[in-house]
Amino acid sequence: MTQKRANMDEQKEQNLSPDAVKQWWESAITDIAPGAIRVRGYAIEELIGRISFPAMIWLVLRGELPTHRQAELFGAVLVAGVDHGPQAPSIAIARMAMTCGIGLNGAIASGVNVLGDVHGGAGQQCMELLADIASRESKATTPDAALRAGLEEFHAKHGRFIPGFGHRFHGIDPRAARLSELIREAARDGIISGRYLAIGEGVQRALALGKAKPPPMNVDGITAVMLLEFGFPPELARGVFVLSRSVGICAHAYEQAQKGERIKGPIPPQFGFRYTGAPPRKLPDELP
Amino acid sequence: MTQKRANMDEQKEQNLSPDAVKQWWESAITDIAPGAIRVRGYAIEELIGRISFPAMIWLVLRGELPTHRQAELFGAVLVAGVDHGPQAPSIAIARMAMTCGIGLNGAIASGVNVLGDVHGGAGQQCMELLADIASRESKATTPDAALRAGLEEFHAKHGRFIPGFGHRFHGIDPRAARLSELIREAARDGIISGRYLAIGEGVQRALALGKAKPPPMNVDGITAVMLLEFGFPPELARGVFVLSRSVGICAHAYEQAQKGERIKGPIPPQFGFRYTGAPPRKLPDELP
Amino acid sequence: MTQKRANMDEQKEQNLSPDAVKQWWESAITDIAPGAIRVRGYAIEELIGRISFPAMIWLVLRGELPTHRQAELFGAVLVAGVDHGPQAPSIAIARMAMTCGIGLNGAIASGVNVLGDVHGGAGQQCMELLADIASRESKATTPDAALRAGLEEFHAKHGRFIPGFGHRFHGIDPRAARLSELIREAARDGIISGRYLAIGEGVQRALALGKAKPPPMNVDGITAVMLLEFGFPPELARGVFVLSRSVGICAHAYEQAQKGERIKGPIPPQFGFRYTGAPPRKLPDELP
Amino acid sequence: MTQKRANMDEQKEQNLSPDAVKQWWESAITDIAPGAIRVRGYAIEELIGRISFPAMIWLVLRGELPTHRQAELFGAVLVAGVDHGPQAPSIAIARMAMTCGIGLNGAIASGVNVLGDVHGGAGQQCMELLADIASRESKATTPDAALRAGLEEFHAKHGRFIPGFGHRFHGIDPRAARLSELIREAARDGIISGRYLAIGEGVQRALALGKAKPPPMNVDGITAVMLLEFGFPPELARGVFVLSRSVGICAHAYEQAQKGERIKGPIPPQFGFRYTGAPPRKLPDELP
Repeated sequence: MTQKRANMDEQKEQNLSPDAVKQWWESAITDIAPGAIRVRGYAIEELIGRISFPAMIWLVLRGELPTHRQAELFGAVLVAGVDHGPQAPSIAIARMAMTCGIGLNGAIASGVNVLGDVHGGAGQQCMELLADIASRESKATTPDAALRAGLEEFHAKHGRFIPGFGHRFHGIDPRAARLSELIREAARDGIISGRYLAIGEGVQRALALGKAKPPPMNVDGITAVMLLEFGFPPELARGVFVLSRSVGICAHAYEQAQKGERIKGPIPPQFGFRYTGAPPRKLPDELP
Repeated sequence: MTQKRANMDEQKEQNLSPDAVKQWWESAITDIAPGAIRVRGYAIEELIGRISFPAMIWLVLRGELPTHRQAELFGAVLVAGVDHGPQAPSIAIARMAMTCGIGLNGAIASGVNVLGDVHGGAGQQCMELLADIASRESKATTPDAALRAGLEEFHAKHGRFIPGFGHRFHGIDPRAARLSELIREAARDGIISGRYLAIGEGVQRALALGKAKPPPMNVDGITAVMLLEFGFPPELARGVFVLSRSVGICAHAYEQAQKGERIKGPIPPQFGFRYTGAPPRKLPDELP
Repeated sequence: MTQKRANMDEQKEQNLSPDAVKQWWESAITDIAPGAIRVRGYAIEELIGRISFPAMIWLVLRGELPTHRQAELFGAVLVAGVDHGPQAPSIAIARMAMTCGIGLNGAIASGVNVLGDVHGGAGQQCMELLADIASRESKATTPDAALRAGLEEFHAKHGRFIPGFGHRFHGIDPRAARLSELIREAARDGIISGRYLAIGEGVQRALALGKAKPPPMNVDGITAVMLLEFGFPPELARGVFVLSRSVGICAHAYEQAQKGERIKGPIPPQFGFRYTGAPPRKLPDELP
Repeated sequence: MTQKRANMDEQKEQNLSPDAVKQWWESAITDIAPGAIRVRGYAIEELIGRISFPAMIWLVLRGELPTHRQAELFGAVLVAGVDHGPQAPSIAIARMAMTCGIGLNGAIASGVNVLGDVHGGAGQQCMELLADIASRESKATTPDAALRAGLEEFHAKHGRFIPGFGHRFHGIDPRAARLSELIREAARDGIISGRYLAIGEGVQRALALGKAKPPPMNVDGITAVMLLEFGFPPELARGVFVLSRSVGICAHAYEQAQKGERIKGPIPPQFGFRYTGAPPRKLPDELP
């Protein structure tokens, strides 16, 4: 056997080692051993009953504990997104799912699954925009120039609509107004730097120019500001929204289950639907 | 037109009324109007920043606010279930999903979806058992007779395994031990009646009879006791676990995404798998 | 080191062997090697272009090729279940999902997920009933006694409703009528034994007794008969329905995507919904 | 009441009309009425038993029947993608899901859900590239210039990797080789124009330039060519793959269910995983 061949065999053997398997699933989140569970280094029995659920979410997602005020503000964000009535697609889907003979977990999954780019992505997109503007500030001549450059590129890439501003249903979104108060308070108290709040307000001013009805920052916009101030990466905005909205999805699925309906469609069946396709026709005697 | 026919037409018209549509989606959870969102009657802007996230979850699921201590204990339950490492199927699925080019919402959905009867149902099943034993107590001669009758029927229906007791990995589950402390404290303080705690301990004693290694109450069992003490219906146990475990699923999916792997299988590909099927064979010249 | 300890170490080492990993994922369906894919023993390149898609589905699910006539009849079953309009929950869900910014795969998944016990389980339940009656025939004095005993137990366990008979929308289901013709033809030609067809018809007669409007066998019932005649296990009935209905779900999701709607709810938003919950109320100054 | 106000009221009333509801769910795919189901205009009872399942899929997705040869070739594509062993993430996920106490529909959904941009999107992306090159041909001086311009833009947008060419596991993909034969035959027989086949081969030549191991067209690439020749829009490539791979997902989920394992993780549990996070640490006495 040549040396080279021997080396290759050794390498191959190593690749089939138990370590290769262990490493395939490596993770920095939770360590477990019989009788022991440590989350981000902390024994689970120390965390239970001492830190709040929002603080735990923060710890698990980020790796370090938030301060008390950070956890409170983060909790406010989680409270704000919980529900918006039975006709949001994610909710309506979970309700219909629950009448089809699947478990609560399945109904929640079918609903959470649709919190995609359009229904659940505004926060992430808004964070990306605000972070992009922030990253331009050091190079731009003025903050305003950075803002305009960021907005221009965003419009060029994604079209007219700026995520995080305006709401198709609410003129003024009561969630946004309240979160806005809390964030301003936090800025005054030095809990957050206020940098991203300033950028968000700059975007709002820019969008208002020459408009009779300027689109105000909505709940996704304010949340984006808050999560950026806290150092969250944009990708986690969707995760945070999923965790919050799952609560409403779960409650609606459960409420629906209590009604005992079976195979619930989107509208009362007597309405029917408009068929717009080919008129009645016969299969040719000889298929093509 | 006969009167009967006229009545039927009227009835049909009513069935196609806007009210029939509104009623199809009726709900008691959240009311919305332009500029207003009320959850279980409370304006969302009053809730944000004043009640904790666990209190909000309780309110949305149950319809009424918990007391401060109830919310704290409920929060402890939510903290306890967050994660158990990367190899729980729900977590491993979300990690693999994240390498296939779908969003964080989709990865979480694929994971949450499998928190079914076996992977996420123990809490609900344990609640059903304990509630069944409780309902037998008024009719039975002694609490012990109710307990034995309940266990017997459970075994007859579902087999040997009693959900909520024992753990295939942990001898003593550190989450159960800590939650157990909290619940005992709550019973001492009169926060809970202790009725279901007593039943749970009774089941534990019954399971220990004649065993060298009696299966202790696990995290699902203690959670079942706590949720029953709080008046939750058994079906919501699975929902509460979904809300808690979603946090770990989200964190793992995000951690995985940072690694940049593509189409991650369950084991390193060099291991392969054992094929146990038909040996190589040729299609017959003439198909059957 | 004692012998026993040495044995244990050896055993443990073996458990961490590459073979333990390979075996964890063992399967009898498809074997792969670089440049080679064999499905149930047949080289994929021999199957492509020679056997029909229904024959392939049968092969993959069952392990052996069907005859030509079996594949044709199985194909007819797959054709029959493809779609039932946009308001079946599985379809409506996929359509709504598609407006939320997720991929076609995700929309199909949210739809397929709800083909559960109630929306997609009738075929499996009907197969279980018919197979149960068949298994009673050898012990019962007459086929009729077996049938009555089977029905009685089914009613006792599952209530009044017999899956596979009657349709809430169609008086006579055109799919059932046509499949019924095909199955009768197959029985005449000796392609199937006709045993389960006879049992199905027996159930239909039993359900008709004393009824003005007897519930005829529906598409799930006829499909159940056909799959039993072909030797499918009941659990696969749901799988076969999923494969068939996925086609309609896919087509509807794609049709919806072409419309360009965003965040489509179940009804036009101007209708709203009826809120039936707590009236407006204020948070107490002092939280409980 | 002014005329304008009256008009608005009328308009609003119309918006709440039954027609507004019917229109919300309009569709050109399937029309249903009691006792009647028409798919793309054809009565379902005429389709069942007369057209093949692939022809039905084509009809439902596209609106018109394929010719016999088109249906055969389309069937070959569907046969080709059915399975690739138990360790593809979509399959492994469905197998693990099946051990967690959810239905076959749920396991299939969790698997199908991950056939996203990376795991199931290559066909669509390849179709977009080839269609883009085709659309450049009328404007470019030579077909080769169109091809180079298309590739350049694709590389600029999406990086080095061209979907539809090369395979990380198979040197030569046996599915691609066989489908390639069938498509060449179809081009000779005039069933397809061969235009996209030529473009695909052009891309293959361009990718081979100066490479010792040129990446051959893989199964996604050949499928992309075939679907373009048949006039499918790129978005449906993913749908077609989902319909094909669902068969393997279903078979694996069912095979797994027969084993009776519970809560199956991705690797044998004795291997464990490598924890790479924070070392054990204690919560500070005073939380931050």
